[in-house]
Amino acid sequence: MTPPDVHLAAVGTALPGPPVDNAALARRFGMDPIWEEWVDTFIGTRTRHLAVDLDTGEVRYSLADLGEAAGRQALETSGFTAEDIDLVVMGTATPDHLMPATVNVVADRLGIDGISTYQLQSGCAGAFQALDVARQMLLTGRHRTALVLGGDVIAKHYDLELDLRRLPPAEMVNVALFGDGAGAVVLTTEPRGDSTALRTVFTRLAGLRRAPGQILEWYGPAQRHLDGTGAREDYKAIEASVPVMAEEILAELLKQLGWSSDEVDYVLPPQLSGTMTARIMARLDVPGMHEVTCVNETGNNANALPFQQLERVLPQLADGDRVLGIAVESSKWIQAGFALEKV
Amino acid sequence: MTPPDVHLAAVGTALPGPPVDNAALARRFGMDPIWEEWVDTFIGTRTRHLAVDLDTGEVRYSLADLGEAAGRQALETSGFTAEDIDLVVMGTATPDHLMPATVNVVADRLGIDGISTYQLQSGCAGAFQALDVARQMLLTGRHRTALVLGGDVIAKHYDLELDLRRLPPAEMVNVALFGDGAGAVVLTTEPRGDSTALRTVFTRLAGLRRAPGQILEWYGPAQRHLDGTGAREDYKAIEASVPVMAEEILAELLKQLGWSSDEVDYVLPPQLSGTMTARIMARLDVPGMHEVTCVNETGNNANALPFQQLERVLPQLADGDRVLGIAVESSKWIQAGFALEKV
Repeated sequence: MTPPDVHLAAVGTALPGPPVDNAALARRFGMDPIWEEWVDTFIGTRTRHLAVDLDTGEVRYSLADLGEAAGRQALETSGFTAEDIDLVVMGTATPDHLMPATVNVVADRLGIDGISTYQLQSGCAGAFQALDVARQMLLTGRHRTALVLGGDVIAKHYDLELDLRRLPPAEMVNVALFGDGAGAVVLTTEPRGDSTALRTVFTRLAGLRRAPGQILEWYGPAQRHLDGTGAREDYKAIEASVPVMAEEILAELLKQLGWSSDEVDYVLPPQLSGTMTARIMARLDVPGMHEVTCVNETGNNANALPFQQLERVLPQLADGDRVLGIAVESSKWIQAGFALEKV
Repeated sequence: MTPPDVHLAAVGTALPGPPVDNAALARRFGMDPIWEEWVDTFIGTRTRHLAVDLDTGEVRYSLADLGEAAGRQALETSGFTAEDIDLVVMGTATPDHLMPATVNVVADRLGIDGISTYQLQSGCAGAFQALDVARQMLLTGRHRTALVLGGDVIAKHYDLELDLRRLPPAEMVNVALFGDGAGAVVLTTEPRGDSTALRTVFTRLAGLRRAPGQILEWYGPAQRHLDGTGAREDYKAIEASVPVMAEEILAELLKQLGWSSDEVDYVLPPQLSGTMTARIMARLDVPGMHEVTCVNETGNNANALPFQQLERVLPQLADGDRVLGIAVESSKWIQAGFALEKV
């Protein structure tokens, strides 16, 4: 029995509130216009969307809120109903709770029950991992139509009381780099009308004996008073490794599919920051592929990003068009890729 | 093409330090012998193993430490090497960090790299979810030999400064109920010699419009001072629901496999606590099945438990023997089951 094709039927996304620009951040954290320009040049991010209200400190959106909105939108666009969904997979680094898993709260709110649900703990590769797990489970034939979610809400780490002027740049950058959001797609082996085939997905640990490039902590009540930022990045290692790893992923995707570089129409590069994406695209050197990038507007909202890129590229696809998605997770160094073909 | 059989090649487990009995807990928290007896009768747990040192408060073991030890033991017993492993899946409610995922730290320490790794965020159903994801991925043929891990370390929630005498019983119970540990199995479609077939695994959300029976929080540095226990259980709901759900899982497993109740030799029931397991066994009413229980000695160490039960049952199996595993996660109500057959 030949395994069925897996199709991407629809995409949905959700961002919390209006865009927050660098001037608004500067005002909130008491920074000057030079800092704004530094963010523009060093990070390349002009706006992001935040679950926390900068004025009041109130957290207005949970990951479940954003996941529900994105999932509902994907479902409504797909032509499938909650009853058609027989698998839900979510990728996130920042679940609302340790238990229950946020995927189950989202499923419940969408009226989905009695089926398999999985939540993958991962940073920038989590959306790809969720796509991969869902696709493999559809290939065995046990499931037919899956809702795949990804998203992150960094509110628990987004400390409005930070004195940015006393932080080293490597920590200061976090308040400008990251954002919040969620996304969703419906995958199915029984497409209804127009669709796009998900030709492959892979994710691969590539961190043997390497220190993590990114660490994100969580705390429990046995630690009564918290110190530190809870988030550390090794930007030198990230800058040195990510473009090279992105190039390896591109090569691996082309090899798996037997496609040549000039047969690909769109590339969805990693979205760590605007400047990093520019560096990656320079390294990839694929002038024939249209770049689909959103991080300058959305900020790095991690597991939401691939869905936002998909939302931008899907309406542009003509029959036969081919798309490659690339992600690098710098925490313990994960390579991830997917390929789409409009059919 | 008929999908290959998935075999369980070996199991490994790891517990932190020596058993901690109720008298030691009573001493540490300043409770009297009546409390000890109450723990014995109400929870049924005589000992547990803790990653935190009761005298010094030092956290001596991380989840990665225990996962590495269990994984190494499973690998060594299995006859497979790190190079043979092409997939690693881990289930936990309490990863060491949000990033990197603990599964990748464990893989790295075992010398496993360049392959797919997944970490599932889940409570008592996480080990079953990890078995399920690994089994489905082996069934597609993309992978051949998987290391499946499960475990939990509650040290970040295990507050030695708690004044138990001022807590309601529903919160006080947590210090006696839970424990730490990890486990691992090697699953393969290419068994070498003696093995046991993993006939089925399923996990299923069953919580539509129901409040969670268990909530476990995490905190970030945007919350400077923590309050509350971070863990809440609705024991009335758990007592009312879990035995009924366990019965439904048993029926579902028998139906899926076409086995009758008297064709099953061993049952691995849910291990929430000794008293709860006794209640579940009474409800299941399967006198022909040998019960495999360990929670009275290990405490409820969540995603480590099914591996500890497997470690106890596997050496007892004769050709043709059949085993059912049952788990209920009360967070957002998940039903989970698996079936083994010695071949």
